[in-house]
Amino acid sequence: MSEQRELKVGDKVSITRTFSEQDVRDYARLSMDTNPVHLDADYAAATQFRERIVHGMFVGSLFTAMLGTQLPGEGSIYVSQSLKFRLPVHLDEEVTGTVEITDIRSDKPFVTLKTTVVNTAGKAVIEGEAVIYVPWLKG
Amino acid sequence: MSEQRELKVGDKVSITRTFSEQDVRDYARLSMDTNPVHLDADYAAATQFRERIVHGMFVGSLFTAMLGTQLPGEGSIYVSQSLKFRLPVHLDEEVTGTVEITDIRSDKPFVTLKTTVVNTAGKAVIEGEAVIYVPWLKG
Repeated sequence: MSEQRELKVGDKVSITRTFSEQDVRDYARLSMDTNPVHLDADYAAATQFRERIVHGMFVGSLFTAMLGTQLPGEGSIYVSQSLKFRLPVHLDEEVTGTVEITDIRSDKPFVTLKTTVVNTAGKAVIEGEAVIYVPWLKG
Repeated sequence: MSEQRELKVGDKVSITRTFSEQDVRDYARLSMDTNPVHLDADYAAATQFRERIVHGMFVGSLFTAMLGTQLPGEGSIYVSQSLKFRLPVHLDEEVTGTVEITDIRSDKPFVTLKTTVVNTAGKAVIEGEAVIYVPWLKG
């Protein structure tokens, strides 16, 4: 809360992770999204994806992880998040999420960040933007 | 996949739920968002919220639940989701999410829905919009 770290445009952090079968089952239970494209290999085989895919909103949780713990970090308050789901993410597929500061308001402590997730081929799987209220920027 | 249910502007569904302490701990682990405002009652007491709050992206998962299982339902593919976080949600606080079709493209099987979560006072806690690709609408 009393952190007074400096923030500047261009600051960014990344996290690389995979989503295991157990992760996807746990997310389906927690979110109540039991769409079989995430849970049923036979069902998924008949779709355009051929294999089960991770819930888009679960992949998007990479942003809340980085925003809430690293940049801006602890104390951050989510104002908005946009998510464009560009490509599917399969189970156990490695993806890298990045949040990068693109704007810091001079009048109020609001920070805008570009938020992206890419796959190992470098293709965007999610693109979007977050706005965060950062109470400790006021000081 | 072969569902050929009719969809029309104005169709809507709602889900009412709460997020328990265990739910929030499980979501923090799965998402890796361990911001103490969600997990540490003493930390939260010193913030503007006074008590721990549920991760905004976890409250937003109400949308993926309804979109993926009810409207449009099974087979839905997420194209985009916007989320404006208007008010905090505390642990064990009852909220109701609603998704309502606002547009169905005539040329391609894309459906737009207004997505909202309200608290028991009827105040919006999240507002946004989802766009869904619905393969079975093609038929």
